[in-house]
Amino acid sequence: MADRPIITLLTDFGTADAFVGVMKGVILGIAPQARLVDLTHEVPPQAVAVAAFLLETAWREFPPGTIHLVVVDPGVGSNRRPLAAEGPRARFVAPDNGVLSPILQAGGATVLHALTRPEFFRQPVSRTFHGRDVFAPVAAHLANGVALAALGPPVTNPVRLDLPRPEPLPGGGAAGQVLHVDRFGNLITNLPEALFAAERGVPVVTVAGHRIQGLADSYAAVPTGRPGAIVGSTGTLEVFLPGGSAAAALGVRRGAAVTVSFAPE
Amino acid sequence: MADRPIITLLTDFGTADAFVGVMKGVILGIAPQARLVDLTHEVPPQAVAVAAFLLETAWREFPPGTIHLVVVDPGVGSNRRPLAAEGPRARFVAPDNGVLSPILQAGGATVLHALTRPEFFRQPVSRTFHGRDVFAPVAAHLANGVALAALGPPVTNPVRLDLPRPEPLPGGGAAGQVLHVDRFGNLITNLPEALFAAERGVPVVTVAGHRIQGLADSYAAVPTGRPGAIVGSTGTLEVFLPGGSAAAALGVRRGAAVTVSFAPE
Amino acid sequence: MADRPIITLLTDFGTADAFVGVMKGVILGIAPQARLVDLTHEVPPQAVAVAAFLLETAWREFPPGTIHLVVVDPGVGSNRRPLAAEGPRARFVAPDNGVLSPILQAGGATVLHALTRPEFFRQPVSRTFHGRDVFAPVAAHLANGVALAALGPPVTNPVRLDLPRPEPLPGGGAAGQVLHVDRFGNLITNLPEALFAAERGVPVVTVAGHRIQGLADSYAAVPTGRPGAIVGSTGTLEVFLPGGSAAAALGVRRGAAVTVSFAPE
Repeated sequence: MADRPIITLLTDFGTADAFVGVMKGVILGIAPQARLVDLTHEVPPQAVAVAAFLLETAWREFPPGTIHLVVVDPGVGSNRRPLAAEGPRARFVAPDNGVLSPILQAGGATVLHALTRPEFFRQPVSRTFHGRDVFAPVAAHLANGVALAALGPPVTNPVRLDLPRPEPLPGGGAAGQVLHVDRFGNLITNLPEALFAAERGVPVVTVAGHRIQGLADSYAAVPTGRPGAIVGSTGTLEVFLPGGSAAAALGVRRGAAVTVSFAPE
Repeated sequence: MADRPIITLLTDFGTADAFVGVMKGVILGIAPQARLVDLTHEVPPQAVAVAAFLLETAWREFPPGTIHLVVVDPGVGSNRRPLAAEGPRARFVAPDNGVLSPILQAGGATVLHALTRPEFFRQPVSRTFHGRDVFAPVAAHLANGVALAALGPPVTNPVRLDLPRPEPLPGGGAAGQVLHVDRFGNLITNLPEALFAAERGVPVVTVAGHRIQGLADSYAAVPTGRPGAIVGSTGTLEVFLPGGSAAAALGVRRGAAVTVSFAPE
Repeated sequence: MADRPIITLLTDFGTADAFVGVMKGVILGIAPQARLVDLTHEVPPQAVAVAAFLLETAWREFPPGTIHLVVVDPGVGSNRRPLAAEGPRARFVAPDNGVLSPILQAGGATVLHALTRPEFFRQPVSRTFHGRDVFAPVAAHLANGVALAALGPPVTNPVRLDLPRPEPLPGGGAAGQVLHVDRFGNLITNLPEALFAAERGVPVVTVAGHRIQGLADSYAAVPTGRPGAIVGSTGTLEVFLPGGSAAAALGVRRGAAVTVSFAPE
């Protein structure tokens, strides 16, 4: 199936308009053999950091050679650059607005080129829908085997977001934050599993004035209605409420502070 | 296309996160030839009975050999069993929480195996996302031809929901309930078409204090703003409001009582 | 890939029920080689004119031979006709309720046939779900190479919506209206790009009492919080609010009046 590359789509277009369908039509017109997979189209309008987080949690799960097409693009039609990027396992097509920052930081994309060659665009290029006119056709041409270097000049200074990193606290703890609130109201943090080495003692997680002692082995291991803490599916600390929404119950949103300290066993 | 099996996906993951996309990435990494079809991802969080209803209305419409992957899994990471099931026309991969009950009851799945063989899982298996780590990879291996029996030991006592059945009333009528409120606000009941044999007289449907006399032949046959009753697309009684939502107008939700009686012609 | 035709789907079914998945199951049972692309399923219930607008903005972007399946069908089960239609670049399957009007007007479909041959339907045909029982199977048979004429008698008098056209104003301007409010709150109008010929002077766009002078070259060229006007991706005037929703900020909905006049340079 190396001849049937996967193209994923991640946008803030929603699904009530036909924007996403139109991008797929353009792709299939150029690369009929491509397989299309939606990551999500419900990124809040122009929320580049949310898109960056979601892409980072998803891209490693796809087979090598997958092309990830990201169109969260508040600067459409301005002089922000459109980019293609490539790493050992994946390719990316996105505006140069920082949405690839976590991937660049992790070495997931090491070669970047600006998209300047109009022969790879849908013509005419509109002022407002480069998803259709620039990004989708370029992703399709990549799927057809066009090399990154053919798309335009190399880029060495891509825009990078200032990604929030956890800060160490005395006693082995750390101060982090909520990176994402998922569909279930779980609070996904940037505090890594490695923090919870057994010899440090019993972790105490504090968020919005609530103290949670110890880590759970499953959501179901915590009584309904009580917040719990667990190492989630992306390897970071997650705060949850069994049978409910931790975000709603604790009144916590994206960006809230979460700290970990350790109590003696 | 027997070599390109269909895998359907039915979850409560919503579409605002990348959970569903990630499951598809895992599947296509193992079974690149699979064709993926979303049933829905908007099952209310952890609403096993809703998922059971939706799966039951959908699975018969797919070609033989289709694999239905269901991840509505409040017990993720606990000791609830993950299952694969097989019947004459379809295969299923789901947690053992009753979501397959209507299919088991109808004989749609007759052989069940627990998923205990980690070589068919994505490693490491997380505590919170068995959709990605257990169910999706197993569905993909089934698509690749792995036999059910290779996945783990047989299961003979799957969890079964107590499915609401209509109760007969004197005079040939029956007392049932609303199983589902659909997008249009239609009230789908568990009262079967067979109840409405012509010789019984004119049916009178009662719901939330409203009496509806006779069955309509189409939605459009009832004046706008008046509730109507019709045999719906899954062969059961449905209450509707032309041009509006019966659920909103009548103040009726899932689980509400609906009775049928018969008046002389 | 001419042997793998694309079928797009455009409905008002939402994605919380399994209606769309069921239609795909029916299609793949008949035409396993078909490639399925969702346009949208979030057309407001029974909003034929919205579906007509969205289809019109999308269909040209798909490769020749694509089959567009539209099920926004308030008249399901009544005597409204189901149709198949064909033009130089695309085929359509839809109820005869005006949803194809913009395409008929533009010459995108020139041959129409009623769907009267039950051997192309799923049996039994229900009273409430012709998407599953009539439209989806017919689209699949078209994908398999069945000719339009085999489906039923020709239709020469399809239902046509009264599409709003801009009216010329003295001085070269025009009075139009908002055809659609998109996900971002942008107001898409029916005022065509050709109106803005340079020699006419500086355009002044008026909507809901707000005056916008001049056209922007990109969304980002207008200061945040100020409404702007731009020629959008479908070649018509669009009113937007950088970083926000023009619809919300201006209190404007579908159908609102928008006028263009010209000031001397």
